[in-house]
Amino acid sequence: MSIYIDPAVAASLRGYEMPEKLGFGTVMAPVMFRAVCQDGCWSRGELIPYAPLSLDPAAKVLHYAQSCFEGMKAYRTRDGGISLFRPERNAARMAHSAERLCMPPVPESLFMDGVRTVTAYCANLVPANSGESLYLRPFLMGTQADLAVSASTSYEFYVIASPSEAYHSGNMRLWVEREDSRAAIGGTGDAKVGGNYAASLLSIARLKQRGYDQSLWLNAGNRQSVDELSGMNFFAVIDAELHTPALNGSILEGITRESLIELARDLGYQVRECAIDIDELLRRVADGSCEEAFACGTAAIISPISVLGDGGENYQLASAPGPVAERLRQALLDIQEGRTEDRFGWMQPVEVISLD
Amino acid sequence: MSIYIDPAVAASLRGYEMPEKLGFGTVMAPVMFRAVCQDGCWSRGELIPYAPLSLDPAAKVLHYAQSCFEGMKAYRTRDGGISLFRPERNAARMAHSAERLCMPPVPESLFMDGVRTVTAYCANLVPANSGESLYLRPFLMGTQADLAVSASTSYEFYVIASPSEAYHSGNMRLWVEREDSRAAIGGTGDAKVGGNYAASLLSIARLKQRGYDQSLWLNAGNRQSVDELSGMNFFAVIDAELHTPALNGSILEGITRESLIELARDLGYQVRECAIDIDELLRRVADGSCEEAFACGTAAIISPISVLGDGGENYQLASAPGPVAERLRQALLDIQEGRTEDRFGWMQPVEVISLD
Ligand SMILES: Cc1ncc(COP(=O)(O)O)c(C=O)c1O
Ligand SMILES: Cc1ncc(COP(=O)(O)O)c(C=O)c1O
Repeated sequence: MSIYIDPAVAASLRGYEMPEKLGFGTVMAPVMFRAVCQDGCWSRGELIPYAPLSLDPAAKVLHYAQSCFEGMKAYRTRDGGISLFRPERNAARMAHSAERLCMPPVPESLFMDGVRTVTAYCANLVPANSGESLYLRPFLMGTQADLAVSASTSYEFYVIASPSEAYHSGNMRLWVEREDSRAAIGGTGDAKVGGNYAASLLSIARLKQRGYDQSLWLNAGNRQSVDELSGMNFFAVIDAELHTPALNGSILEGITRESLIELARDLGYQVRECAIDIDELLRRVADGSCEEAFACGTAAIISPISVLGDGGENYQLASAPGPVAERLRQALLDIQEGRTEDRFGWMQPVEVISLD
Repeated sequence: MSIYIDPAVAASLRGYEMPEKLGFGTVMAPVMFRAVCQDGCWSRGELIPYAPLSLDPAAKVLHYAQSCFEGMKAYRTRDGGISLFRPERNAARMAHSAERLCMPPVPESLFMDGVRTVTAYCANLVPANSGESLYLRPFLMGTQADLAVSASTSYEFYVIASPSEAYHSGNMRLWVEREDSRAAIGGTGDAKVGGNYAASLLSIARLKQRGYDQSLWLNAGNRQSVDELSGMNFFAVIDAELHTPALNGSILEGITRESLIELARDLGYQVRECAIDIDELLRRVADGSCEEAFACGTAAIISPISVLGDGGENYQLASAPGPVAERLRQALLDIQEGRTEDRFGWMQPVEVISLD
């Protein structure tokens, strides 16, 4: 199906002035992609100016959080081109998230049309310094105006974009969250849906007051093994091997996680996907056999962890940023920014649209 | 603070034609109440025509489900007046829900202004037959346009209303949900927030295909004791005593539940708030010592349960609707509709506003 390009798009892009300070996910590109689904039938996609959405006050998304999203980046590569990183993995994950909340999955071709079209038209907004990118945010939501607790009959899919700086989280101080849970066993933890993030806001606010940066979530089933952070997966280097929580149904299947596992094995590291007992981990940090830990995700790629706080104790990681994190980060960014050969076939170049 | 009444409100109300078929939560009243909160400061409330909301595509509520709501009813009483049922309990619960998601609680006076003003102006839309009502839906959401996973700096509070028929659920066939979870221990189960409802949609869709009406959720911690339904609390009559799950942090503190406990005790029933083991409950249904079970909530007040389905088995309740459920339902509705003395002080009359 062809994509409709609103005639106002050109003027929106031409009149756009990029602010000097970008931040991350704060500045919005002046165009967006949109498609609607009514009773299971998808409209064709359209590229339109970025503008407020009109939503009925009784729309399901506002009351019952029937919505899911993705986060991905378009990178400016060394040759001046623009590439997406494994976008089909985001398409697949978004389909999974949609199904968990009874929403019609966005067809892969429509998803790809969305991210490619926005990227192609916003080529001039992809910043050029290493670590910078155009952050893409596809999202899907139930829009039917009806207060019954049931799946919506109508949906809207959007792709918005945000020219963003490198996401600097520095050395993170994590707080081991033993009180609150983020996602239940049998819940929505392996789907990228709003409710998981809503549930984590209070913990984040609390720990910031105590001088920490992020929560380290434990599994809601046993409250003993490490799940992940609110928006990143977790890795520890123990006795020179990489350990990361196995996909247990309550953590998000991160695309950075998956890529780092492949890359690390390729670089000769042992990688174990397993349950990580929190008390064992803290012991390992204390006795020095865990020297290094880091979190990973699309935004920051890899963020080193310097401290794990638990109750009254602070467990200091010996090495932050550690050599393994540094090496993996550089290796992945080199692929994403086109400085080394894309030997895993992860990068998808996007044909840039020139307005003239 | 005085409430601003938009001059267009009168025309909206005068021009409104009530559809013949109401349903429940489907037909919307033509006006709504609105207030906004910026950096912790609340605007004054305003009554405005019901109209689509304008939301930035990056608004937090759409991505991170930072929203909560209430459900309550305005009843037409026997003397022709209009009353709200325990509205201050809804105000308190909404404040609790807001805090769980790091949102500024709506001040009780603003909440009361909202539900009273909408009710007062919509007096003509409160249907008059027993069981019918004006269903009120206050809700609060984070509107800041920013993709960071953090609490919004701006919020909007609305009260919308829906003239509704009696909510007839008949004798319900429940499915014991042993696979999915609705809310984790330490999660958001005791708050009325969107994510809980999103997480329950898939289970509801699955069980409808198998010929059931609603999920019976088990506690996500032990997956063994009964929590509640997706939108109602649970009661069983065992050996002539009422049993209902204790408030354990993962069930919603229902206002109907609380009122029924008080009413039942007043009528001479023993009421136990305790953990209800699902296997024990099914045994009791099978051997006849649990004759009756029902669910309760604002919408249906009391819905009798006729079957508990678990795996391949259907456990039939001997008596559905049962005498206890019938008696309690009538006693509560008699208070709500002003046919008996309001000896608990639950009803709050609303001064009706006449447009002429
Ligand atoms: C909860 C959660 N875990 C992990 C990740 C990392 O996933 P990805 O590497 O695909 O960005 C994210 C998103 O970035 C997330 O929101
Ligand atoms: C999950 C849940 N449990 C219980 C109830 C019952 O609460 P109330 O009696 O206050 O309506 C509701 C809402 O109606 C609910 O959504």
